[in-house]
Amino acid sequence: MNAHPSAAEPSRLDRTALLSRAARLSLAAFDVDGTLTDGRLGYGDDGHEFKSFDVHDGQGLKLLARIGVEIAWITARSSPLVARRAADLGVRHLIQGCHDKGAALSALCASLRIPCSEAAFMGDDLPDLAAMAVAGLSVAPANAHPWVLERVEWQTRAAGGSGAAREFCDLVIEAKGRREELLSRFSPA
Amino acid sequence: MNAHPSAAEPSRLDRTALLSRAARLSLAAFDVDGTLTDGRLGYGDDGHEFKSFDVHDGQGLKLLARIGVEIAWITARSSPLVARRAADLGVRHLIQGCHDKGAALSALCASLRIPCSEAAFMGDDLPDLAAMAVAGLSVAPANAHPWVLERVEWQTRAAGGSGAAREFCDLVIEAKGRREELLSRFSPA
Amino acid sequence: MNAHPSAAEPSRLDRTALLSRAARLSLAAFDVDGTLTDGRLGYGDDGHEFKSFDVHDGQGLKLLARIGVEIAWITARSSPLVARRAADLGVRHLIQGCHDKGAALSALCASLRIPCSEAAFMGDDLPDLAAMAVAGLSVAPANAHPWVLERVEWQTRAAGGSGAAREFCDLVIEAKGRREELLSRFSPA
Amino acid sequence: MNAHPSAAEPSRLDRTALLSRAARLSLAAFDVDGTLTDGRLGYGDDGHEFKSFDVHDGQGLKLLARIGVEIAWITARSSPLVARRAADLGVRHLIQGCHDKGAALSALCASLRIPCSEAAFMGDDLPDLAAMAVAGLSVAPANAHPWVLERVEWQTRAAGGSGAAREFCDLVIEAKGRREELLSRFSPA
Repeated sequence: MNAHPSAAEPSRLDRTALLSRAARLSLAAFDVDGTLTDGRLGYGDDGHEFKSFDVHDGQGLKLLARIGVEIAWITARSSPLVARRAADLGVRHLIQGCHDKGAALSALCASLRIPCSEAAFMGDDLPDLAAMAVAGLSVAPANAHPWVLERVEWQTRAAGGSGAAREFCDLVIEAKGRREELLSRFSPA
Repeated sequence: MNAHPSAAEPSRLDRTALLSRAARLSLAAFDVDGTLTDGRLGYGDDGHEFKSFDVHDGQGLKLLARIGVEIAWITARSSPLVARRAADLGVRHLIQGCHDKGAALSALCASLRIPCSEAAFMGDDLPDLAAMAVAGLSVAPANAHPWVLERVEWQTRAAGGSGAAREFCDLVIEAKGRREELLSRFSPA
Repeated sequence: MNAHPSAAEPSRLDRTALLSRAARLSLAAFDVDGTLTDGRLGYGDDGHEFKSFDVHDGQGLKLLARIGVEIAWITARSSPLVARRAADLGVRHLIQGCHDKGAALSALCASLRIPCSEAAFMGDDLPDLAAMAVAGLSVAPANAHPWVLERVEWQTRAAGGSGAAREFCDLVIEAKGRREELLSRFSPA
Repeated sequence: MNAHPSAAEPSRLDRTALLSRAARLSLAAFDVDGTLTDGRLGYGDDGHEFKSFDVHDGQGLKLLARIGVEIAWITARSSPLVARRAADLGVRHLIQGCHDKGAALSALCASLRIPCSEAAFMGDDLPDLAAMAVAGLSVAPANAHPWVLERVEWQTRAAGGSGAAREFCDLVIEAKGRREELLSRFSPA
């Protein structure tokens, strides 16, 4: 989202440009609610909160890490359950309670010595726009807010919490030419 | 829903009239179950109840409050979890256990010194009709009960608990001409 | 489902016959999982089970009871949460842990002195067929098992746990000519 | 999936071959998350996990066991709730925490003295490919990962956790010519 981050005009990349950007990614950062979940915030009358993550998304994040891409979750809300899911998946960079996702992503890139152009950000609502403006590639799930969809460079076909993150992971794996190698680890010769 | 509130004839507003009504709103009142949720009432065998709210809806309600519209939730059921979600969002007016939503909305308008014509009510089932008759604008999510859909002035494309409230918030923000200003707070220059 | 209960040939009623059967109903009996829920059985790793009911269905059952139709739930499983939801709705006849729904429905009709021809049964899977054979009207939600859909006299457009029961309640209310009277209680003059 | 397990070319069986393979099955093995569930992993902020199973799937597994097919669940994750659901359904072979599903299925076939050609495996993601390569019939739900869908011999129309397993059970029941017998147990003469 380097060019015209606040313009409403179409900023979508064509397939060639998209694959080129995806091929050089070193860091993939994700919003949580609505991006890695379906946006439902569960509340119980005993005071507990809950949310659901997608098993396909989790598998994709593990594959992406396996081929050397750093994974980060950056979220405005804060909950021990998000920390637990991140730990289950071995997500190395978890930033909760974040009110400036653009600054957070910039700082993370700096600390990892990764140029922002090698970072992607996937999100679904207005607070994600600042991080998208910093990132070298901006992505949204199919059911992101329309004002966000107008601004991202790529939109998955899947919805948040239903494989949108996996679809993005698959794109990066294919762009980096690592698909057959990963598949061969799962399929007997 | 000022005219013919109990008639089955189409009461839908055209786009111009809809935007005009939305532009002068001072209060937006919402039913909870089926409107701010998908209508599912979760029961656990340990006696607890739960329900899920949509993160996009929450963002919309916060934006609407930020541009000066009062937010109210008016519901027949009563649960501490609804109070907790309302508190998380800073919803100022929460009326639970309400068996006459029309009277409740009238009383709230009076106490806030807001004319009922400047209040909207969004709901999805028969107990919401009385509040809709009082309000200056009646709105329902796409999956509202058909007898309600026949009577409302506007129907969102999104379903309850899946962005219907956000769609209504966006309409009001656009009608009041505040969209670009809000977007600019989220998008770096 | 009086005729040919085990035949795969179409047993659907035309609209006139359907309304005629619905008009004379004195008892509406429902399966629970898959009929009043979406069929999801929630399990927690703390040993608790949970399921979700639809707020529209609940409203429909209350309206049906209000116009004098007896409501029964007949289910093979057994859980305190089902008892709690039934109590919340004022459901008078709750039969859990039932392994012969046909016998249970017959016995209930006898104890209420209601002819079986004035009872309807709504269900979604094979264990419901026996009760459907006893009932004067057999109904299934849109997502019932295909072997059941082949055998019922009416199929709702809505899925179980998403308004299927409400759609059936509405049919009975309309067939009995009570729609306007009920609506007038909710809509100010 | 005996031939070309790692090839991307279509491996789908025609209807005749599918029914022939299904007719001789002695063992039906299933992945859990995404196959017997919709892939949602619920997390609560009290540290508990939860997931939902489909009541139709459960009925199908019980019917399949009744006609003499062994049922196995083979999953990489490990949770007491899966053990509880399996126990509720009388599933005899539950293998949790499994990191080589191919080896697990081979070992199970050996211990049951069932040729692998008489075993089916239903799964939805890459870790299931090894078991599919061992099994005599490979099946995936409609919403399986695309790299898996390219490789399976049959794909259900239903999604995981929404009747996909039931659809497979029905296929086996029909292929073995046991449908009418089972139906007659549920339908009064």
